Amino acid sequence: MCLTEPQAGSDVGASTTKAVKQGDGSYLISGEKIFITSGDHNLAENIIHLVLARTPGAPAGTKGLSLFVVPKIRVNDDGALGDANDVACSNIEEKMGIHGSPTCSLVFGANDGCQGFLLGEELQGMKLMFHMMNAARIEVGMQGCAAASGAHQQALAFAKERLQSRHWKTMKDPEAPQVAIVEHPDVRRMLLTSKAYVEAMRAILLQASYYLDLSHSTEGDEAKKYKNYVEVLTPICKAWCSEWGLQVTHTCVQVHGGYGYTKEYPAEQYMRDAEIACLYEGTNGIQALDFVARKLSLAGGQPIKELLGMAEKTFNKAKNDPELMEPAWLLAAALKQVETIAKELPKRPDGIQVMLINAVPLLDMVGTCLGAHYLLDQAMLAKTKLASILSDAGVDTDDKKAYKAFLSDNEEAAFYHNKVQTAIHFGYRALPTVPAKAAAIRSGEKAALYAIM
Amino acid sequence: MCLTEPQAGSDVGASTTKAVKQGDGSYLISGEKIFITSGDHNLAENIIHLVLARTPGAPAGTKGLSLFVVPKIRVNDDGALGDANDVACSNIEEKMGIHGSPTCSLVFGANDGCQGFLLGEELQGMKLMFHMMNAARIEVGMQGCAAASGAHQQALAFAKERLQSRHWKTMKDPEAPQVAIVEHPDVRRMLLTSKAYVEAMRAILLQASYYLDLSHSTEGDEAKKYKNYVEVLTPICKAWCSEWGLQVTHTCVQVHGGYGYTKEYPAEQYMRDAEIACLYEGTNGIQALDFVARKLSLAGGQPIKELLGMAEKTFNKAKNDPELMEPAWLLAAALKQVETIAKELPKRPDGIQVMLINAVPLLDMVGTCLGAHYLLDQAMLAKTKLASILSDAGVDTDDKKAYKAFLSDNEEAAFYHNKVQTAIHFGYRALPTVPAKAAAIRSGEKAALYAIM
Repeated sequence: MCLTEPQAGSDVGASTTKAVKQGDGSYLISGEKIFITSGDHNLAENIIHLVLARTPGAPAGTKGLSLFVVPKIRVNDDGALGDANDVACSNIEEKMGIHGSPTCSLVFGANDGCQGFLLGEELQGMKLMFHMMNAARIEVGMQGCAAASGAHQQALAFAKERLQSRHWKTMKDPEAPQVAIVEHPDVRRMLLTSKAYVEAMRAILLQASYYLDLSHSTEGDEAKKYKNYVEVLTPICKAWCSEWGLQVTHTCVQVHGGYGYTKEYPAEQYMRDAEIACLYEGTNGIQALDFVARKLSLAGGQPIKELLGMAEKTFNKAKNDPELMEPAWLLAAALKQVETIAKELPKRPDGIQVMLINAVPLLDMVGTCLGAHYLLDQAMLAKTKLASILSDAGVDTDDKKAYKAFLSDNEEAAFYHNKVQTAIHFGYRALPTVPAKAAAIRSGEKAALYAIM
Repeated sequence: MCLTEPQAGSDVGASTTKAVKQGDGSYLISGEKIFITSGDHNLAENIIHLVLARTPGAPAGTKGLSLFVVPKIRVNDDGALGDANDVACSNIEEKMGIHGSPTCSLVFGANDGCQGFLLGEELQGMKLMFHMMNAARIEVGMQGCAAASGAHQQALAFAKERLQSRHWKTMKDPEAPQVAIVEHPDVRRMLLTSKAYVEAMRAILLQASYYLDLSHSTEGDEAKKYKNYVEVLTPICKAWCSEWGLQVTHTCVQVHGGYGYTKEYPAEQYMRDAEIACLYEGTNGIQALDFVARKLSLAGGQPIKELLGMAEKTFNKAKNDPELMEPAWLLAAALKQVETIAKELPKRPDGIQVMLINAVPLLDMVGTCLGAHYLLDQAMLAKTKLASILSDAGVDTDDKKAYKAFLSDNEEAAFYHNKVQTAIHFGYRALPTVPAKAAAIRSGEKAALYAIM
């Protein structure tokens, strides 16, 4: 995907790469594109670039862009490879991470010989590119989740092996044996918080992908409904999962102590690799602007209302469970804040400024609500499953010791038990950040606009 | 400073390096130390290591450690350099960042010829080492602040140069000119949040350093009081400033968009360099345990009470200022949560577990309260200074346009104006995280202990 130019990053509409129609119906492409993932490599016989470019007389901005198929090597009529197509790699970026991925600068038509073929119609470039970009945005969210999940699994394994200090119950006795650091409450908190965010991310991503599948397998209004859900969830998938992905990798470095900073363990690489997901495929700031400016009001605001309505239903179910009741009420309180902001903001005379300043926290708030909703939903299902396993095995849950012994022997029971603990932990740790972020938004604090910079 | 061994990182008491007294009063040192900053280099003629080691028959744990002066090259009686002292650098770590700092593994006495000299008395090693460690912990906090401040200054300069997209007032017009990204509300939020945290960190660090100076320049009870303030503030300096230092560098990478990930700009290096401050000189988890287990109860809890009492005074002053009133009340609410937890926690039967799980959030809460307290204090002073400048210049503050024009011409006025905006921003953005974190603590949520890992 060749979108970005040196002066046109977030501002794709500022692209200046040109496409001039030739007698044979093909186009002559000229310009420079940067940050092209795998823009050049030797892994395949040929590379097909999809290039955004501007035809002569096209309007300014994104509306003037068309999309072109530009092969690295021209393809003859018989399908065999022909001559080189005047596409040159002028630079490979030195980056913080993802060193396995060559990030290229490409020069098209330095010798006036770069042939491109129009894809679809002229001036439809952005619309067509968004087919790929929307999928890519969900995938970049998955990248954030994957880095976090890998980091969590590795940190957990490290914490089970690394002996350091005594158990907190015997901490005053210097003769007591060292225990694995997974026994230390602070380490357990870091690991459970990491697990909780990973599973919340995964749930959001899978739910969005499920709606995407449903939008293909249904028709008419139903298909449209699912498509809208995907539209609303896409910037959340991308930005929420990449931001929390980075945060989880940072936490997992911390689990390692000093070793986490060395290349002896993969922890530091997970963190360096995770950072890119916050930046490419539209920075998280751009995702948040897309979310608040386009997606909240999409289809009259119905899709976001329905998605949050499902979270409300989860609250209504979970509030009757003594163990999940408190996190459920925290979810309700968080949802109430989102709802209030959605109602209040358009009525404020400074509503647009407040919305623009707070796009990122607003997206985060909705992502956190959805994450909690899915985790609580999973926890309720897990409780049913767990109860059935325990009943089959004749375990008395009031006998804490017997219950714990059973869990350490039964992986499936432990899985469901952990699902419940994860939802509780996420509820108490993540949901209260929603009212916390709402405070600044509801107050209309605009110091960022008033400060002299 | 040679403390860490492969099996003894956070758990310094597990050190096994040996020191055996010789006939001439010197000691024969043998063992391996790792993660020694500048443990070997060619920048000086000689290197003096301070090594924690255990004498024969010494008790287990930190109480059995003594401190030794170990030169790289032996020093003759006349002060000239003599023979090598059997200290070898066996490895230099490959790290995520701080590549200018060689992190060495040192082997002492591989050939039974490493001479060391006792510093102070036997078994006083940890006490003596803490003289250096306490200073080092404040300095590592300063390192976090410095990385963040450097990152912020560079991101601000970038944001003023980088043209991208239109001003939000003309965003729908594709013909409108690109503006510097410092004009975009989301970028301004990131920059002001960064500035606010940098200044809060700096205030905490300078305040702790001021108390350290006072503890030297006063005597008796007064000196003791200031020494206790330093003791309480030291883990906050180290952990709060390094954690928020890392977060600010991450935010500043984000300001750059994709360029932030490349080595073309220093943003990514600031982030890689900042991460170490969370880990060395005692991980932030260790700092937090020191804070909750030792420092909160130091001298009967009087020092922390007095430090938070000063924050309370700032609230009482700031609440009368219409502009600072709301952040002041947010500070009061945050202080109330800290106070309530300090009262409630010891009364809970599971108080110790809850405290150990939540040491890190608790330290963060207190750090945030102190940061807000100092920024509000600065803002009140700034308002007085600003009023005097404006009055001297005859600027009518009700005339917003004239006021803004004056600020853009008068650096000193802009500095004070920004101090006020920074305190307001920090108040609304950071303080609400305190009650948010309190929610989990006050509920006694212990999922991290219940989860099977």
